[in-house]
Amino acid sequence: KINADRLWSDIHETAAIGGTEKGGVRRLTLTDLDRQARDWLAERCRALGCDLTIDEVGNMFACLPGTDPSLPPIAMGSHLDTQPTGGKFDGIFGVLSGLEVLRSLKASGYRTRHPILLVNWTNEEGARFSPAMLGSGVYAGLFDRAYADARRDEDGVTFGEALEAIGYRGPAPAGAVRFCAMFELHIEQGPALEAANKEIGVVLGVQAMRWYDIEIGGTEAHAGSTPMAMRRDALALAARMILTVQSLADAHSASVATVGFIESGPNSRNVIPGRVRFSVDLRHPQDAVVDAMEAALKASVAALPAEFDVTCSEVWRSPAVHFDPACVDAVREGAARAGLSTLDLHSGAGHDAANIGRIVPTAMIFVPCLNGLSHNEAESITFTQCAAGAQALLNAILLYDNK
Amino acid sequence: KINADRLWSDIHETAAIGGTEKGGVRRLTLTDLDRQARDWLAERCRALGCDLTIDEVGNMFACLPGTDPSLPPIAMGSHLDTQPTGGKFDGIFGVLSGLEVLRSLKASGYRTRHPILLVNWTNEEGARFSPAMLGSGVYAGLFDRAYADARRDEDGVTFGEALEAIGYRGPAPAGAVRFCAMFELHIEQGPALEAANKEIGVVLGVQAMRWYDIEIGGTEAHAGSTPMAMRRDALALAARMILTVQSLADAHSASVATVGFIESGPNSRNVIPGRVRFSVDLRHPQDAVVDAMEAALKASVAALPAEFDVTCSEVWRSPAVHFDPACVDAVREGAARAGLSTLDLHSGAGHDAANIGRIVPTAMIFVPCLNGLSHNEAESITFTQCAAGAQALLNAILLYDNK
Ligand SMILES: NC(=O)NCCC(=O)O
Ligand SMILES: NC(=O)NCCC(=O)O
Repeated sequence: KINADRLWSDIHETAAIGGTEKGGVRRLTLTDLDRQARDWLAERCRALGCDLTIDEVGNMFACLPGTDPSLPPIAMGSHLDTQPTGGKFDGIFGVLSGLEVLRSLKASGYRTRHPILLVNWTNEEGARFSPAMLGSGVYAGLFDRAYADARRDEDGVTFGEALEAIGYRGPAPAGAVRFCAMFELHIEQGPALEAANKEIGVVLGVQAMRWYDIEIGGTEAHAGSTPMAMRRDALALAARMILTVQSLADAHSASVATVGFIESGPNSRNVIPGRVRFSVDLRHPQDAVVDAMEAALKASVAALPAEFDVTCSEVWRSPAVHFDPACVDAVREGAARAGLSTLDLHSGAGHDAANIGRIVPTAMIFVPCLNGLSHNEAESITFTQCAAGAQALLNAILLYDNK
Repeated sequence: KINADRLWSDIHETAAIGGTEKGGVRRLTLTDLDRQARDWLAERCRALGCDLTIDEVGNMFACLPGTDPSLPPIAMGSHLDTQPTGGKFDGIFGVLSGLEVLRSLKASGYRTRHPILLVNWTNEEGARFSPAMLGSGVYAGLFDRAYADARRDEDGVTFGEALEAIGYRGPAPAGAVRFCAMFELHIEQGPALEAANKEIGVVLGVQAMRWYDIEIGGTEAHAGSTPMAMRRDALALAARMILTVQSLADAHSASVATVGFIESGPNSRNVIPGRVRFSVDLRHPQDAVVDAMEAALKASVAALPAEFDVTCSEVWRSPAVHFDPACVDAVREGAARAGLSTLDLHSGAGHDAANIGRIVPTAMIFVPCLNGLSHNEAESITFTQCAAGAQALLNAILLYDNK
């Protein structure tokens, strides 16, 4: 049985690292705040006697040995980084619950057969460096290290530079620390569990998602003396495109389409915008539907007035993932053994488990969050929900260990 | 007769202060580059033996004495600051032509009856600190010094702090340096002169203009797991509003409406935007038409879905201005005496002359610019157009001096 008080107190202690006035957290990946959270975790893992390995993209692996040295580890992992205005639970809840599992095992004297591995994946959010889930993506071989190193934030700093600046470029090649299964506990970040009044989400998979950058080139000109008919206003065109992106979601039920980022230049009140860049995020549980949305997006880009320079480039593509049935069963069974009600569902959010699930048996556990709200400083879960999630994680690990 | 070669060389020399790769200029008001341009001008004026006065908002006044000490000066003025991606001529063309007028007078030995005053007005562009034409606005009593001092740029720096940082807070109270008339030479920044194939624009007045800030508060939430129907996407609503702003201009011929500035938060690809702020610029030669546009803008804000928090605040209002007939006549006659063809027109852009025209007889002289393009690094005029404008300015001054 996990110690929920200890976990709850860890969550609130770490929430101070980048804590905001509004009760949220701003701990962008590979910043000094991320380093502080990483150092905090490393110290706690070492105090437990775990071996700590850092790989070449900053992923952290803490290993508690099992009784059978011939068996590969079972992993539990999530992330410590946050959105610019993120909450206290997204990511770190899974990491700290994993830490709590290690502590509970150690404290109880119970020895698993497999080693148990706690993982912190680098840059899950994709807020500072796109794409999201980059550390797990390199681990899973979806991207190589050079690709990751070259990603740039909005200030032009590369992932590689930022990683070295905080001292978390480790010696291990990505993928070197092997495991036979991974379980990721996370808040749902959506409304399904709350609506169904269930305690645990048994996650069957992660929907398909794609990211694009659209750039529009028009002509900067004077806002007062340039007649409307002479303008090539890049922001006015972007506004039309933003509404088009919204309409992509109307065409396919259960799909979502979002413009989360926009930058307009020169961004001066009395200058007609000459260049605008914005992001597009398209998702649906089925790859084929995202294909259709993408085709519609590209068709509407192609239909834009020829006097504008418009480019639409794909930034990232993450196909739909279906989790491993044995791992999913361990989650469902683990929740049941703790007397928790469950709902089978798919994840709308991307997670490191989506990348890992492509190469190793994987599953996820969700707990409800208040109003389904996440990527928001008001993100919240109750003590009871927190305890339930961590207990379900421990149970799933033990079940899988005894398989 | 002015020395056009000297003027042309001054223009290219000063264009290096903040010169950009694309041949434009980035010399935002009260930055160190602005200081360099100011120092350059001050040195040239002192070399001519002019008395230099700086007022409390950084306006610079260089005075060449006349023959009759009882007469007030006649002023020539414009600005040295630029847009973030501005051209080589907007503003500084008028200032350097004024300098050339002083030099030509001095070199020829001709003595005017009135003293002749060259003015550099602070923060005409309004790009760093809104509103535009702030230095001339304080001079004209439209704003007080405290208001100007408190204006903030996007980094939170105040106008007062920036002014002191570059050492251009002068001892003279704003308005203390008096003059009896002002002539401002400027590039047209619009297409009318080029279309009519005329050399000089005789500017009858400046159209009415108003600036607003619109802020939209929605809810930040996860872009992947928040169903479309649950969203309060502030950027999607802003996109609708940007198109509404465009349509305001369709309803009234000769009106213009622009969203030049936008900022979205938290501006992360996978977060539904929770807050967006954007600017609105509405203009028409008649105040009543801008009243109607404003009413339509406010009505559409009021009609937005109640679940969003939307505020629309007026940042600046500049009523239509009609220039002084005697000054306008001096411009028309001065151009004619130089054998230059003219077109009477209204200015679509705001100018310091619009503020000064409210309290002192004022007029403006336009020269055409290539493709009517301004607030763009590609802004361009020919040597001949440059020479014509400066000559028309000198002639207008001499005519007004002999009135
Ligand atoms: N879980 C989570 O917020 N991940 C970020 C990646 C995404 O879904 O956009
Ligand atoms: N002339 C000029 O570009 N002035 C800036 C003020 C405005 O018209 O917006």
